[in-house]
Amino acid sequence: MTDALDHKLAFICQLFQKASAKPIELYALTRLWHRLNDPSIKMVPQQYVRRDSERYALTDVYFPQFKLHVEINEPAHYCDPARVAADKARKQEIESQTGHEVREIKCCGQLSSVHDQIDTVVSEIKQRQNELQFNGRFQPWDPDQEFDPHYWREKAILRVEDEICLRTVDDICILFGADPKSIKRGFLKKGIIAYPRDPTIDIWWPADKPRSGWNNVLNSEGTQILETCKNAARNQAHFEKFSKSTFQRYVFFHSKDVLGFSGYRFVGIFENGVEKSKDGIDEIVWTRIGTQVSLR
Amino acid sequence: MTDALDHKLAFICQLFQKASAKPIELYALTRLWHRLNDPSIKMVPQQYVRRDSERYALTDVYFPQFKLHVEINEPAHYCDPARVAADKARKQEIESQTGHEVREIKCCGQLSSVHDQIDTVVSEIKQRQNELQFNGRFQPWDPDQEFDPHYWREKAILRVEDEICLRTVDDICILFGADPKSIKRGFLKKGIIAYPRDPTIDIWWPADKPRSGWNNVLNSEGTQILETCKNAARNQAHFEKFSKSTFQRYVFFHSKDVLGFSGYRFVGIFENGVEKSKDGIDEIVWTRIGTQVSLR
Repeated sequence: MTDALDHKLAFICQLFQKASAKPIELYALTRLWHRLNDPSIKMVPQQYVRRDSERYALTDVYFPQFKLHVEINEPAHYCDPARVAADKARKQEIESQTGHEVREIKCCGQLSSVHDQIDTVVSEIKQRQNELQFNGRFQPWDPDQEFDPHYWREKAILRVEDEICLRTVDDICILFGADPKSIKRGFLKKGIIAYPRDPTIDIWWPADKPRSGWNNVLNSEGTQILETCKNAARNQAHFEKFSKSTFQRYVFFHSKDVLGFSGYRFVGIFENGVEKSKDGIDEIVWTRIGTQVSLR
Repeated sequence: MTDALDHKLAFICQLFQKASAKPIELYALTRLWHRLNDPSIKMVPQQYVRRDSERYALTDVYFPQFKLHVEINEPAHYCDPARVAADKARKQEIESQTGHEVREIKCCGQLSSVHDQIDTVVSEIKQRQNELQFNGRFQPWDPDQEFDPHYWREKAILRVEDEICLRTVDDICILFGADPKSIKRGFLKKGIIAYPRDPTIDIWWPADKPRSGWNNVLNSEGTQILETCKNAARNQAHFEKFSKSTFQRYVFFHSKDVLGFSGYRFVGIFENGVEKSKDGIDEIVWTRIGTQVSLR
């Protein structure tokens, strides 16, 4: 159904629907969006953030242009002092780990109180937007740009935090100046090519769905990919190769995001290691060693 | 969860959730509410309206203070000329049957187009509200009042269109100046009492859930109640009584509304008849003969 919609409308519709099991969260986030009333402001759901070296959190809403998270807490959060303390600790950890800020909407039950708190967040966002615009540093939300390899090739810098998401493998080729024809392998497509400007580096686009027996699992922090093959002989050969030398890859991980939109997301530069899993399976462990690539 | 919320917040949260299976409808109606940004404006979902003597329609959103319906049509509505023509006919029938007006939000896929159309409806509603306020005829949405028997007793006129909904049988007694103790029958409560000011009329509060074997079915137009009892002997006695004489009842029908809120809704003045159902069951047929009761 959402095919006929423009990308922003489809994206926000999905975001709303995703929240619909939680009535107050739905109310608050629809209000945030409609009171902001500015399609140049990007709002994303369930942003993954680190709390400390072990734990992470998903915030309810994130405004990437302002590095601002909003937590919408339903009345149950305030019944229990332990929970109030836990929420406070979580907020402080997120802020100190990310350098972002976290605002909290306490939905204690009164319409006017919910409205007042959202109005405050809306005013703050508008003010920050004005400041960024004044300094020429406001980057309007533009999904067409986010998906456009020519735009990123021109920009010549890829950063994980920019949430670059390409639609096709051909677009990845365009971004790196590779010939899209070079990835054809009969009716199949290769899963990896050498970077034309630096053949010591590969460009790789693994997927979270198994393909031709290969399994790739990206951890929720985006810092590690475990690669295995169901075919034991192939897995063994692969393991031996990657036991001996170290390679670097620019990785675009194909998956569906939390709203169900699929694409090849730039997840950083990865380097290989190997390990035996608990079940005794030989795994290639790709570890993120960088979050930024310069194309110049 | 919604217990801790004030009634308006709970009501609108439910209204949003109810629409959440339809992404565009959810988007448009959250926007209508948040852009109106006025808790004195009542917005209700899925309003039942007559199209002609046989058919009825449920409109997506209704603003009772302005007798204005809003239909939110998803892109599929515009793919098929037959559907466009059917929507147009439906709109005209609703307008001519009810004297209300129907506005249409065509969600053709572009965010800006959806926003423009909603802005137009919002402006229209605000303008009408200003006019009503200027003439002293704007009645702010006040759920506490809607539920307050003292308010309606003071007002001294009950009209079906005012959507009067009382929370308890005791409140019904208060409204009609009856002693709430008079409805006690041991641990049970009576289902009917005589109107103290006019004992030829009964006040009745049937429910859509079977109670003590009694079944009451209100038709979707609110114009007829079919009453039967599972106990054959009782049903027979009841049928004989109501075959012989005609009685009038002021009826408060207990049910859940489309949003899941239950209460005793005033549905009008009803008079009895009898009929045999297709299955040969003797039924009492209560037919609405009036939509307005004066308490003076």
